[in-house]
Amino acid sequence: MTVKKLQVGMAGLGRVGKLHAVNFLQKTPRAQLVAAFTPDPAEIAWGRVNLEPHGVTLYTNYDEMLKHPGLQAVAIGTATSVHAEETIKAIEQDLHVLCEKPLSTDVEVCRAVVQAAKKKPHLKVMCGFSRRFDDSYRDAYAKMEQGLIGRPAIIRSQTCDKFDPSGFYVEYAAWSGGVFVDMSVHDIDLSLWFFGDEVLPKSISAHGITAVQPELKKYNDYDNAVGIVEFWNGKIAYYYCSRMMAAGQEDTTEIIGTEGKLTVNGNPQRNFVNLYHNGGITREIPHNFMGRFSPAFVQEANDFTAACLDNTPLPMKLTNAVKAVEIGSYLQEALVSGKQIHFDEIGRRIEKAQL
Amino acid sequence: MTVKKLQVGMAGLGRVGKLHAVNFLQKTPRAQLVAAFTPDPAEIAWGRVNLEPHGVTLYTNYDEMLKHPGLQAVAIGTATSVHAEETIKAIEQDLHVLCEKPLSTDVEVCRAVVQAAKKKPHLKVMCGFSRRFDDSYRDAYAKMEQGLIGRPAIIRSQTCDKFDPSGFYVEYAAWSGGVFVDMSVHDIDLSLWFFGDEVLPKSISAHGITAVQPELKKYNDYDNAVGIVEFWNGKIAYYYCSRMMAAGQEDTTEIIGTEGKLTVNGNPQRNFVNLYHNGGITREIPHNFMGRFSPAFVQEANDFTAACLDNTPLPMKLTNAVKAVEIGSYLQEALVSGKQIHFDEIGRRIEKAQL
Amino acid sequence: MTVKKLQVGMAGLGRVGKLHAVNFLQKTPRAQLVAAFTPDPAEIAWGRVNLEPHGVTLYTNYDEMLKHPGLQAVAIGTATSVHAEETIKAIEQDLHVLCEKPLSTDVEVCRAVVQAAKKKPHLKVMCGFSRRFDDSYRDAYAKMEQGLIGRPAIIRSQTCDKFDPSGFYVEYAAWSGGVFVDMSVHDIDLSLWFFGDEVLPKSISAHGITAVQPELKKYNDYDNAVGIVEFWNGKIAYYYCSRMMAAGQEDTTEIIGTEGKLTVNGNPQRNFVNLYHNGGITREIPHNFMGRFSPAFVQEANDFTAACLDNTPLPMKLTNAVKAVEIGSYLQEALVSGKQIHFDEIGRRIEKAQL
Amino acid sequence: MTVKKLQVGMAGLGRVGKLHAVNFLQKTPRAQLVAAFTPDPAEIAWGRVNLEPHGVTLYTNYDEMLKHPGLQAVAIGTATSVHAEETIKAIEQDLHVLCEKPLSTDVEVCRAVVQAAKKKPHLKVMCGFSRRFDDSYRDAYAKMEQGLIGRPAIIRSQTCDKFDPSGFYVEYAAWSGGVFVDMSVHDIDLSLWFFGDEVLPKSISAHGITAVQPELKKYNDYDNAVGIVEFWNGKIAYYYCSRMMAAGQEDTTEIIGTEGKLTVNGNPQRNFVNLYHNGGITREIPHNFMGRFSPAFVQEANDFTAACLDNTPLPMKLTNAVKAVEIGSYLQEALVSGKQIHFDEIGRRIEKAQL
Repeated sequence: MTVKKLQVGMAGLGRVGKLHAVNFLQKTPRAQLVAAFTPDPAEIAWGRVNLEPHGVTLYTNYDEMLKHPGLQAVAIGTATSVHAEETIKAIEQDLHVLCEKPLSTDVEVCRAVVQAAKKKPHLKVMCGFSRRFDDSYRDAYAKMEQGLIGRPAIIRSQTCDKFDPSGFYVEYAAWSGGVFVDMSVHDIDLSLWFFGDEVLPKSISAHGITAVQPELKKYNDYDNAVGIVEFWNGKIAYYYCSRMMAAGQEDTTEIIGTEGKLTVNGNPQRNFVNLYHNGGITREIPHNFMGRFSPAFVQEANDFTAACLDNTPLPMKLTNAVKAVEIGSYLQEALVSGKQIHFDEIGRRIEKAQL
Repeated sequence: MTVKKLQVGMAGLGRVGKLHAVNFLQKTPRAQLVAAFTPDPAEIAWGRVNLEPHGVTLYTNYDEMLKHPGLQAVAIGTATSVHAEETIKAIEQDLHVLCEKPLSTDVEVCRAVVQAAKKKPHLKVMCGFSRRFDDSYRDAYAKMEQGLIGRPAIIRSQTCDKFDPSGFYVEYAAWSGGVFVDMSVHDIDLSLWFFGDEVLPKSISAHGITAVQPELKKYNDYDNAVGIVEFWNGKIAYYYCSRMMAAGQEDTTEIIGTEGKLTVNGNPQRNFVNLYHNGGITREIPHNFMGRFSPAFVQEANDFTAACLDNTPLPMKLTNAVKAVEIGSYLQEALVSGKQIHFDEIGRRIEKAQL
Repeated sequence: MTVKKLQVGMAGLGRVGKLHAVNFLQKTPRAQLVAAFTPDPAEIAWGRVNLEPHGVTLYTNYDEMLKHPGLQAVAIGTATSVHAEETIKAIEQDLHVLCEKPLSTDVEVCRAVVQAAKKKPHLKVMCGFSRRFDDSYRDAYAKMEQGLIGRPAIIRSQTCDKFDPSGFYVEYAAWSGGVFVDMSVHDIDLSLWFFGDEVLPKSISAHGITAVQPELKKYNDYDNAVGIVEFWNGKIAYYYCSRMMAAGQEDTTEIIGTEGKLTVNGNPQRNFVNLYHNGGITREIPHNFMGRFSPAFVQEANDFTAACLDNTPLPMKLTNAVKAVEIGSYLQEALVSGKQIHFDEIGRRIEKAQL
Repeated sequence: MTVKKLQVGMAGLGRVGKLHAVNFLQKTPRAQLVAAFTPDPAEIAWGRVNLEPHGVTLYTNYDEMLKHPGLQAVAIGTATSVHAEETIKAIEQDLHVLCEKPLSTDVEVCRAVVQAAKKKPHLKVMCGFSRRFDDSYRDAYAKMEQGLIGRPAIIRSQTCDKFDPSGFYVEYAAWSGGVFVDMSVHDIDLSLWFFGDEVLPKSISAHGITAVQPELKKYNDYDNAVGIVEFWNGKIAYYYCSRMMAAGQEDTTEIIGTEGKLTVNGNPQRNFVNLYHNGGITREIPHNFMGRFSPAFVQEANDFTAACLDNTPLPMKLTNAVKAVEIGSYLQEALVSGKQIHFDEIGRRIEKAQL
């Protein structure tokens, strides 16, 4: 008896798409990458060299890839603007889907994906929040579940990228949904994970600045922002996102409970090397998310594959992906409007006049 | 020629008062503690044993202590409610004053002290924000001034105390001014130091919970709170204060600039010992501010003494002490009201109707 | 054109053998595990479940596996006592070999393997010292090569395992070659790497104790030992090996140069989680070499595969593997005899009478 | 009743002498510095400015200082060569003595001091090993005594100074007794403390190099040395001393027990500041022993004073100071001779012929 492997097609071969493609091709023993789609000639060229020799069929038309013989699952790593449409199409073709975060920057569009998925409960449809697959976050969660910090009450979480002087992130802001939707959505998702996805926001505040990229203002966006989400039942999460870090990527989370605290990546480091020199002791830190989360992406591909093959539960609900974008959008609104936003105990927004 | 020492009187011999008294008595070579006042019999008894044998005259009447022959300066470590009155009386007697923070929890009362001090510009009147005298904060400030982090844009600062199960802090909340005035005032003062005391708030938000001491609600106070102060000219400070820490005191500050970041106490530790045991590697952290800031209090006493004797500038302006309380009060108001507070470019509050 | 993969056979499916087998099967994209040998029925059973379904042919006879059609390379993870014989047999069959360390605990036997390999210079024959493939060690080496620490002069390196109460290591001592050959051989190899493999020992001292396993004495072995190797040209390496660690595995290396120092794993940690609790701050550390060096084993399999397929140089000379065992044996001799051992400038041992 | 203060005279006002003088003058509340001796005109000049105004009488003749009215104790911080003579003279004058380490680099001379002290058991005679007064070492000792690491078996301890390019240490080597006596004597003393002062050496090995100061060879000394002392009853201490550190002072100690490990200063740091910059995260470390051990020297002055005034035991036996020098001398001999040194179970040296 030979092992049956999940037949996977990859949509998109950009930065994250390449990562997923290689993971499914080489680092996911139970999966077989059989197809890949990209409309981009440069990406196709990359696929010719790196995928085709391994038996991967390349497509420049997404719909055609979906008809690839024997295809069972699609991983979507295209531009955010087509995530939702591609996910829905794949669901309609009865394919499992692993879609990069976010489903959409528009909450209503996210909900449409959830609706489509609901109709096919036998399919595994997951939005890839990579930190859910990170060994350290999983260990922190397990320790919290063991009661080591009592009842979790406060989460501080930040997504802070190394400064990219290319100007890429200015134009990106035109359609990214804003820093809270683009960056903090990870931290929001972590809050839903550690606080429990039933938590409901009570009030939301946010403030931001453009410290190094004033051009962002034309898109109502910021390069540094701080936001607070107070949840009903006495919990607070506060977030910092920045694209200005000098040293590298600093994605740090604290979960503060009534009897202890867990930190994840409180002391960033690239590896186990320290250099003692005339000016002190220096260690490097990762320059980007790949340096920190590569193994999590591999784990994600493996866990998704296992869930599809074994029909086991996915590690996160698709509705959480919507909720994270929703809270991110509220934070962005609070940021731009300069107003605190309030919600009642069943999650309905309270308008200003009612306050 | 013998050395001339500053003749100091101590008001208050409670926890902080004892600390100041011992510092002036034994750890401030250029000062001589000659008098101490406290209305409390237990504190007087402590003074009989610990101060009187060293030539310190004890008083149970503050006004009388002010008349102690040769007295040049007063250190005030009594209850906050009498700080302002005692400071003004000492100024009127032509005495230098080192007053524990805050001058008052009431901004108007703080201003009265500043007015009194203004009339006697030859006197040194200082409100003791101990972190200004801490070696690490001073080193961080020097590094920022050297341009090592570019232009500072974001400050994250927290004052987090070990949980005190005695219930003390519930009753204390009745008159403490609230957690932001009582605890975060240190972090606010640091913001004024690192951002420059000319910064003006633009908008303020705050959220809080009572995670372990629900009784605080009767005083409109919280045991965990998060606040954001956005300043004009593109700067943000955000604060976390908590009385719930399990491990000990965690007073951490980050100053994030356009080209780097400075952290102070990102890795709290009590000393240089690590214990490797069956469960991993453990280090202890200080249980209270004494374990972290004792040397800063000694430095403060010495710096204050030097300023009085040599007529050199104090390391901080008295008006800053007022501004820190003022911002703390705004944070507390934002916390209790659930509303964001706004200010115009010259610091005047903008009322809701105007927004 | 499809990708040509290196056809690999695995000898031995014990602890390390399983690790190599899985790495070649699933984590080495350019290799294909096609065969596996073990005389052990339990290991065969494991292979039936974990290897056979992936198309791996199982053998209980090593010689027969060597005749597997198309086989190009063998990885050897059997007991140390048969490493050399199996390596030589594979070489004779014109197969590339990756042999687990050490080739043998007997220096003469090691040399025989080197002789066999010399006759077939087209073959890649490597002894797997995993730390050579570890990202942190490679980064440290690169930094040293960049001149960041000046001229390296002192190496401190330790291999310290978590205490194993099972008693396994007592019986193991009967044939392990002693702690310096078994454990410190890694640290010695690192010294040859960082100092350059031309270094010659000048004098060697060693001391040991049996702190937790006095039964080791019957095999002239120790559970904690410290040794010093002084090299000609002013270099010293000193080693500590222990099987007594409470917290987990602590493999730490320092390379101290005339202008700086590099540390590798000076602060062991299992992941990025820290737990703040009533007793302080705790982080866990790996319990065994897998927790620290798993990725290095994967890298080793990939690098070995690339060298075989592309005919590129291996990252280490086979003669180094002999030299490491040789120095380990001298340390063991110095340990047991209580005598310092000396060598002349061309590496010949100087007998006591000559001193 | 006024407090009675210990009347102290200081011998020597060089680097360490100044430190002691200031500590007794300003940081030892129960002591009063009343006299100071130095034959050096520059040091006398310093004393005129810094001591005389505080009522300290300056002497250029040691014997005369000993006759200072009311003198009760002498602190000796002169050149090592006169430590013993001055200590004995003070004892003869019925004065308590705190003598800087070492009493002498000559073991016989050390013993003479012990003999002199024995005759006056009412006097407190202490050799100042500053680490005994360091808060972290004391905490580590307390944790060991609580049984947190089981039975201590291995000590690794290093004294590593920042490189001093002035050449001072070359000439200093002429009379320092060699690096093991000069530097490692601290680590040896720590071993006697943590293992218990009854431990007897069983065998000793040492190796050294001159990596940056080849001129040291003319004095048979080294700038980097590693030594091992095996004690009877299954304990080993190993030491590294260096004058070549680039980053600053790295005095690190590990105490490894059967059930755990304690590290002291495994992660050196100057203060609580970390700088995040384009090249990673950097912290500074102390440049010299003052940056690490200043508070220990203050503690030493206070503890010595308390022992004299209250007639309480000193924290260490004077005989330990001899034993530390003795073991240091053996290490130095092993280093220079290239021979391992052996001892029988009652501490008698075993000559080579007997082996």
